[in-house]
Amino acid sequence: MPEQISRWLERFGKALETPASANWNELFAEECYWRDLVAFTWNIITLEGRDEIAAMMRKQGALIGAKQVAPDDPSLPMTDETQGWFTFETTTARGRGHVQLRDGRAYVLVTAMVELIGHEEIGGARRPRPDGIEHRAEKGRRTWLDHREETARTLGHSVQPYCLIVGGGQNGLMLAARLKRLGVPTLIVDALEKPGDGWRKRYRSLYLHDPVFLDHFPYLPFPAHWPLYTSKDKMADWLEIYAKAMEIDFWGNTRCTAARFDEKAGDWIVSVTRGGETLTLRPKQLVLATGLSGAKQVPSIKGAERFRGQQYHSGDHRSGAGLAGKRCIVIGSNNSAHDICVDLWEHDAHVTMIQRSPTVVVRAETMREVAKSIYYAQPGADIDVADLVFALNPFRPRTAFEKGFTDYLRNVDADFYARLEKSGFDLWHGEDETGFFMEYYRRAGGYYIDVGGSELIASGEIKVKRGSVAEIVEDGLHMADGTFLPADVIVYATGYRPMSEWVGQLISPEVERKVGRCWGLGSGTACDPGPWEGELRNMWKPTAQDALWFQGGNIMQARFHSLHLALQLKARMEGVPTPVYRSAS
Amino acid sequence: MPEQISRWLERFGKALETPASANWNELFAEECYWRDLVAFTWNIITLEGRDEIAAMMRKQGALIGAKQVAPDDPSLPMTDETQGWFTFETTTARGRGHVQLRDGRAYVLVTAMVELIGHEEIGGARRPRPDGIEHRAEKGRRTWLDHREETARTLGHSVQPYCLIVGGGQNGLMLAARLKRLGVPTLIVDALEKPGDGWRKRYRSLYLHDPVFLDHFPYLPFPAHWPLYTSKDKMADWLEIYAKAMEIDFWGNTRCTAARFDEKAGDWIVSVTRGGETLTLRPKQLVLATGLSGAKQVPSIKGAERFRGQQYHSGDHRSGAGLAGKRCIVIGSNNSAHDICVDLWEHDAHVTMIQRSPTVVVRAETMREVAKSIYYAQPGADIDVADLVFALNPFRPRTAFEKGFTDYLRNVDADFYARLEKSGFDLWHGEDETGFFMEYYRRAGGYYIDVGGSELIASGEIKVKRGSVAEIVEDGLHMADGTFLPADVIVYATGYRPMSEWVGQLISPEVERKVGRCWGLGSGTACDPGPWEGELRNMWKPTAQDALWFQGGNIMQARFHSLHLALQLKARMEGVPTPVYRSAS
Repeated sequence: MPEQISRWLERFGKALETPASANWNELFAEECYWRDLVAFTWNIITLEGRDEIAAMMRKQGALIGAKQVAPDDPSLPMTDETQGWFTFETTTARGRGHVQLRDGRAYVLVTAMVELIGHEEIGGARRPRPDGIEHRAEKGRRTWLDHREETARTLGHSVQPYCLIVGGGQNGLMLAARLKRLGVPTLIVDALEKPGDGWRKRYRSLYLHDPVFLDHFPYLPFPAHWPLYTSKDKMADWLEIYAKAMEIDFWGNTRCTAARFDEKAGDWIVSVTRGGETLTLRPKQLVLATGLSGAKQVPSIKGAERFRGQQYHSGDHRSGAGLAGKRCIVIGSNNSAHDICVDLWEHDAHVTMIQRSPTVVVRAETMREVAKSIYYAQPGADIDVADLVFALNPFRPRTAFEKGFTDYLRNVDADFYARLEKSGFDLWHGEDETGFFMEYYRRAGGYYIDVGGSELIASGEIKVKRGSVAEIVEDGLHMADGTFLPADVIVYATGYRPMSEWVGQLISPEVERKVGRCWGLGSGTACDPGPWEGELRNMWKPTAQDALWFQGGNIMQARFHSLHLALQLKARMEGVPTPVYRSAS
Repeated sequence: MPEQISRWLERFGKALETPASANWNELFAEECYWRDLVAFTWNIITLEGRDEIAAMMRKQGALIGAKQVAPDDPSLPMTDETQGWFTFETTTARGRGHVQLRDGRAYVLVTAMVELIGHEEIGGARRPRPDGIEHRAEKGRRTWLDHREETARTLGHSVQPYCLIVGGGQNGLMLAARLKRLGVPTLIVDALEKPGDGWRKRYRSLYLHDPVFLDHFPYLPFPAHWPLYTSKDKMADWLEIYAKAMEIDFWGNTRCTAARFDEKAGDWIVSVTRGGETLTLRPKQLVLATGLSGAKQVPSIKGAERFRGQQYHSGDHRSGAGLAGKRCIVIGSNNSAHDICVDLWEHDAHVTMIQRSPTVVVRAETMREVAKSIYYAQPGADIDVADLVFALNPFRPRTAFEKGFTDYLRNVDADFYARLEKSGFDLWHGEDETGFFMEYYRRAGGYYIDVGGSELIASGEIKVKRGSVAEIVEDGLHMADGTFLPADVIVYATGYRPMSEWVGQLISPEVERKVGRCWGLGSGTACDPGPWEGELRNMWKPTAQDALWFQGGNIMQARFHSLHLALQLKARMEGVPTPVYRSAS
C-alpha cells in the first residue's frame, strides 16, 4: 500500500471519529464523489462535492459509527500510487472501500457494505449446524427432506414469508439465494411454470450478449467448460439448476393480482392465484423483480385490426420457421428488432425493418475485445472484487468517460459504421454522444449490440425503411411518407411499458405516483428526464413506499446489487437500525 | 524445493533418458514403491521393490518416453526436506508426480497422468468455440438447443456412443462428465428413472458418512453453504443438477439385458430395454458403473417361507414409520444393519440385531476430528492436489500404517469400545487389526461408522444377539444356540453379491471367470484372498476383457479415478498408443 494512500486512510479514520465537526474539505478534492452502497447511508447514493459529503456525514456520522479503517490486500486490482482498497466497520456491519486520490485528496470514494455483524451468511466455517450433522439417533428426528417438505407445505399458508419476491427470473433467484443464506424466509411467485421458462419462451436464436465471465451467479459459478456466450435454453436450464441447488422456494404458475400495505400491521396483503386457487400472503417486505420492462407496448396504429396476416409483439416471436418467402415487417430497430430480423432472414423470409428513430449500434466483437481486458476476464478473478471494481466510476464522471469510449468505438469501427450509414440506417451515438452504456443506464434500450444484423442491413439483405407508420391495411402498411409496404407478417418490436406501471397495476395509482420512475439517472435526456439523481432510481434501495423494493437489471447488476438489497432486508428483519439518508436535493 | 529433492529429480530425469540401462537401484531405496496411475504403465499399479521397478522401466521406458522432469510449486502440501512434487511429460501426456526420499533415495514414487497432449479438456481458455460464439447471422444456423435435441434424437439410434456406461449414480455421472469435457460421445443407461433415484430410494434417515469437503464432484464443487453431511435426498437432487449442468446423455428406465464383444468389429453388441422397447447399442467401450455391489444377497434360511410377518432385504427398507411396538429383527451388523436398527428404534419398534460375525466399529465423531486435519479440509484446498495427496501411500505401507491408526482409535475411544463390548456386541478391529480402512479396501464392508447406533446398543435400547439363525418359523426365529426370538418383521441386512457377478449375468460366465474378482487387494484375509495385487482389482484400469471397464467406489474414488479411466478411454478413441504394463506376478 503506497504511503500516500495509507496516510489518507489514517486521516479518514481520524475524521470518522468526529464526523460532525471534521474538516471534510481537507480530505476531499474540489471535484469529488462519494458513492455509498448501503454502508453509510442505508441507501445507494452518490454524493457529489464537498458540501453534500459534509452534510451526509453530519447527519449519518454518529448513527453509523464507522471505524477501524484499514488498508486491504495490496495485490488487489486498482491498487497503485493513487488508489487503493480498505476495510472498515460500522456499529452494525463490515464494509469495504476504495479511494482514488488527486493531489492527496479523495476524488472518488466508494464504500460498500459486505456483511452484517452477528448476522453473517452461512457457509464455509459457518455451515448450517442443525442441518449439517444429522448423524445421531433420536426419536422424532427429522431429515433434510422432512424439513423441505414441511416448508413446501406451510410456507405461504400457516407460515408467512418475511419477503415475497414477485418474479423468478435471474433477478428474483439471485436475491432469493442471498436471502436463503442469510436466513430470511422468502417466497418467489412467478406466472410461469418453472425457473427458466422466461428464457425458454424467447425467440430461438437468442444468446446472451455478455460473455460468461460477467454472468456468474452468486455462490455457484458456471463450470469452466461453459461456452463464452450462453444460449437462452442453456440459461433456462441453469436457472432451474440454481433454484434447486439453492433450495429456493418457488411457486410457479402463480399470478400476483393485488397488493396493499397494511400500515397498522406493518405487512403486505398480497393476493395471488395459484393453480386456480386464490390465496392471501402476508409478507413484511415486497420485492418486484419483474424485469426492467412492464407490459408489452404495442403502438395503436390506425387500421391494425384490418390486417389479414399475422401480427404480434416481439415478446411473442418464437422462430422464423415456416415463414420462408413471406414478407415480414419488423417495426422497431433495437436489439430484439435486429435479432428477429436476422432470425426471419435465416429462415428465408423477405425482411424489412421500420426504423422510427435513430439507434446506437456497437459491434459485439469489438465489445468482446474490450471485455478481454477488464478484470472480470482475468484468470482467477475474484467476482466480488470485480463487481466492486466495476462500481468505482460514479455516473457523472462516467458520462464524460463514455463520450471518450464512443469516440474510440467510432474510430476502431469506422468502416463498419460508414457502411451501415450508407445503407440508409439511421445511426447515432445518443443525444449527447455518450453511446451504448449510457443508453442502457438512462432508458434500458435504444441500442443494438451487433451480432450479424448490421452486416445484413449494410448488404441490403435486410431492408430498412425510416419513418413512422401511418396506417395498416389488409395486406400491408402505408408509411407517413406515402410508401406502401406489402406484408404477410408484422412484428411489433416496439418495446415495453415502464416497469413502474406494475406498481400502479398491482398496488395502486397513488403508490405508483409516490414511488415515481424506476431506472434512469435523471440525465435530462429525452427518455430520462431530470432532475439528476446520480444513481438508478428506486433500484435495490428504499423507495417512497415502505417495504416496497425493486430488484432488476442485467446479470451483473442482479448479482452485485442483490447483495445490497438482501442486506437491507436482513437488517430490517433482525431489527438492526437502518437510518436511511436521502440526498438533500 | 529443497536441494535433496531437486538433485533426485535431476538424476531421475537423467535415468529416464536411458530407461533400459539406467541403474534404478541408485535411485530407489531398498524398500521402495512406485505407484503409477496410467502415466507410465497405462494401468493402475504399484511396483514394489527395485526389481519390479527396473523390469517395468526396461519394458515401458522407451514406449513411454518420459522427459522434462521439473520441480512443481513448493507451496504445495507434502513438500519438505524429504518429499516434493514434480511435473513431467511423456510422448503422449502431461503428468504430475511426488517423491518421498529416504537417505536420498526414493522410498515412494507416485506418478499420475493429468492430461493427454493435443487432447486436453475443454474449459477456460479452451472453451468450446463452435458452441461458444453463436453470435452471427447464417442461414440454417443451429442453436445449442438444436444440438441437444439432435443428440437426444440420434444418440443410441443412428449415432452410436463411443462409450456406454451402465449405471448412472455418482460413479457413472462423474465419468460421463469427464468424457464430455474430453469430447468422447457417451451414453449412460440406468434402470431407474432419473439421476439420483438410487439415493432417493434408500432408507429415509441416510446421510453421507463423509464430510462435504471429501464429496465434491469434478468441475462443479458444492456451494459453500452446503451442510457438512449431505442427506440422501439432497444428494439425489445434486446428481440431477449435475447431470443437467454437465449435459450428460442419460437414458433412465433403461435396463441392460445382455452384452457381447464382437471381436471382429471391435465393438460391443448391447441389448437394452427402454420403456418396453428393445434396442441394440454398439459402443466401442463398455463401462460397468453399477456400484460395488451386485444383487441383493439373502441367505437361504430354513423355514423363511413360513414367516407370517414382513421380511425384506435391507435395500428395500424405506422407513420404520408404522412399526411402533413391532418386534423387528435385523440380521447383520454392518452399516446398513445399524442404520436400520436406529431407524426402527426411532419409530418405537422393539429392535434386535443378530450379529453373525465380528464387526469393526469407528466413531463418526472421531473420524470427523481426524478429517479436520487432512488437506481436503483446509480452506482453499485444491481438490485435485488433495486427491493426489491421498494417493501417496501405497497399499502395502498403508496396511502397516492402518494398524497404528487402529491403535490410536482404540486409545482415544477406549471408554466407548469398552461399553460397547460389555453389551455383548462382538467387536474387533479386523483379522490383522488393520481396522476400518482396510476392511473397506479389502471387502467394502464389515464395519459400522457409528452415528448413534452403538450408544443404543451399549444402553440396551437395541438388543444384540450373537450367532446364526437355525430356522425361521411363523412368528419368529430360532437361533443355532436354541434361543427363540419372536418377530413381526425380519430385515436381511446381509449384503450384496460380488459386483463381478454382473459380468456373468450381462456378458457370460466365461468372461466373468476371465476377468475374475473386482475390488480387494489380494491381502490373503478371509474375504480378500491372495495373491497380493497391491491395487484394487480391475478397478478403473484394463481388465482381461478387451474394452470392458469398471468404475466404482466411494465419492472420492469416483472423482479421482474417473479421470484416469476417462484418459484411458479418450486415448483409445483417438488412437493414442496405450501400451499396458501388467505386473510380472
